[in-house]
Amino acid sequence: MKRNLFRANIVRLAGYVPGLQPGEQKVIKLNTNENPYPPSPRVFAALRGALDDKLKLYPSPTADGLRQKGSEVYGFRPEEVLVGNGSDELLSMVFRAFVGADDVVTYPWPSYSLFEVLAGIQGAQVCPIEYHADYSLPEELFSNHAKLTLVVNPNSPSGTFVSGEELYRLAGSLSGVLVIDEAYVDFAEEDCLSLARECENVIVLRTLSKSFSLAGLRIGLAFAPEELIGGLLKVKDSYNVNCLSAVAGEAALLDLAHMRTNVAKITTTRTRLVQALQELGLEVYPSQSNFVLVRISGASAADVYEELEKRGILVRYFNQPRLRDSLRITVGTDAETDALLRELKASIPET
Amino acid sequence: MKRNLFRANIVRLAGYVPGLQPGEQKVIKLNTNENPYPPSPRVFAALRGALDDKLKLYPSPTADGLRQKGSEVYGFRPEEVLVGNGSDELLSMVFRAFVGADDVVTYPWPSYSLFEVLAGIQGAQVCPIEYHADYSLPEELFSNHAKLTLVVNPNSPSGTFVSGEELYRLAGSLSGVLVIDEAYVDFAEEDCLSLARECENVIVLRTLSKSFSLAGLRIGLAFAPEELIGGLLKVKDSYNVNCLSAVAGEAALLDLAHMRTNVAKITTTRTRLVQALQELGLEVYPSQSNFVLVRISGASAADVYEELEKRGILVRYFNQPRLRDSLRITVGTDAETDALLRELKASIPET
Repeated sequence: MKRNLFRANIVRLAGYVPGLQPGEQKVIKLNTNENPYPPSPRVFAALRGALDDKLKLYPSPTADGLRQKGSEVYGFRPEEVLVGNGSDELLSMVFRAFVGADDVVTYPWPSYSLFEVLAGIQGAQVCPIEYHADYSLPEELFSNHAKLTLVVNPNSPSGTFVSGEELYRLAGSLSGVLVIDEAYVDFAEEDCLSLARECENVIVLRTLSKSFSLAGLRIGLAFAPEELIGGLLKVKDSYNVNCLSAVAGEAALLDLAHMRTNVAKITTTRTRLVQALQELGLEVYPSQSNFVLVRISGASAADVYEELEKRGILVRYFNQPRLRDSLRITVGTDAETDALLRELKASIPET
Repeated sequence: MKRNLFRANIVRLAGYVPGLQPGEQKVIKLNTNENPYPPSPRVFAALRGALDDKLKLYPSPTADGLRQKGSEVYGFRPEEVLVGNGSDELLSMVFRAFVGADDVVTYPWPSYSLFEVLAGIQGAQVCPIEYHADYSLPEELFSNHAKLTLVVNPNSPSGTFVSGEELYRLAGSLSGVLVIDEAYVDFAEEDCLSLARECENVIVLRTLSKSFSLAGLRIGLAFAPEELIGGLLKVKDSYNVNCLSAVAGEAALLDLAHMRTNVAKITTTRTRLVQALQELGLEVYPSQSNFVLVRISGASAADVYEELEKRGILVRYFNQPRLRDSLRITVGTDAETDALLRELKASIPET
């Protein structure tokens, strides 16, 4: 291109790189924290019932059926709920609404690498603050003056959890907005949704991609005080949630029992996976998630990652400080977990 | 809220107001330019076939199946195609990629009111330039130095069309990017897709919401030189198109005959509608779209709008300069058009 038409910050920006989505070939996919169990039969029934001429009509701009159901299930008013095209879209809205050029965004790291990309799009500065070694919150995060502070809880890629009291103290200490991304919280022992009711500056994000097994349909929910939701609505695309995802999301929330059964299976498998990894002499961070972060010893994590890929098992490797010696492994079915453990043993010469 | 957490430009911003989406009550809906005919049976078949456990997996980040099909149907390489969650999302990406704070955005007006909102989100300046009375392009639009120039073609709400030669001349005169939004182009006699091949600064947008009867599924396509698509990808949400919309879009593009049959029905009805409106003594702008803009005489357009609503017919009224004396009416089925004409006659005392 003879001339550069893009904004300077976009030219500099390296886009986000999602985990590999293999095509049709047979692999055990433990790299993007999908749920190994299918969504509720009620989701399929609702989708079948929605395959009619209404596809020709625009959907509800605010996915009102799902918004209403989300508000009932989680104990909010509909005005305190916003439905997104996945929680990634909700994060993008948050950045557009609260973060301008040269504003500061902060978060404890290592965490979700998308934050840096979203800040870059806004031309904002990121000031990540390193987690303690045990992934407790660094004290420097408190009382910061960033426009936006983000905490993923349970955190990815560590799987670790920060208590509600700690995040309540954080929210009260900030001059800007605190986003708590609870994508994995259904796999944890508690949640922080009450902070979205109690604190004027807190937005809690949820997704139906993980515990509800609906990653393909892109359904996220934001919970926050009405004033915050009202401002976020201004930057929302007019019809951001398609009619089928809205119907599926509503049906999924009508069958919490199905979700909880799957979560129970996954957390049981997680306990077994952690024990087996520890018996291999590997260090595992305490996980309240549907994945574990394991430090590889006896071989380089990058080599083990590649060896596992050759053996038909995809896990996630981050070539970043603090993560280069580790692999993030999604908790799959029991059979997938057995295969993972078998191939992992074969991939680490010293074990 | 005690403190203001939002960016100043977001506080000032009035969000976009979409056309009314009525609930379950029985109305004739001629206000948001939806297609009155259903999508292809192949779309339903493909969707039924996609209701399986794959919903639990993340979709292709770039909706590769649909991207490939779109490239084949329209004569591009896949790298020159970008799939969006509706063309509204593609417009949002364009603004984020090309327009920073205080940059200038221009377009001939009256046109799509979303442009002003998207510019406001970026903190950019809008310099709209008024169309000539016959909706030909104003000469002041040429050789402008805005970062972004947008032309909807056929234009909404006028329904009028600007020739490819004129837009080619416009593209060559600009220092920034030209977006040609062809949402309604399947109802026109020609299109400008070739400009996305020939001009390094042109992005052509298409949607499956209108001619393909899929407004509910949010499927947009952008065609542009690979360099432009590459930059837009950087600001795209990781998984912006859900798996069912991707499958439906691909199926829709496999059945162009179905779309063309519906388009032929609509343009035939359009001809009849225009004649009938003219016989009522009303002025109608020449439409190459699935709607008409009609100047109401003998009564105020706002009153006629309200009277039609009482009579169960929704049309679109814009309380804006140049549009206050007009109504935008979607071309529905023949029966809907008969009802519209009957109630319109009854709503204008002088006719």
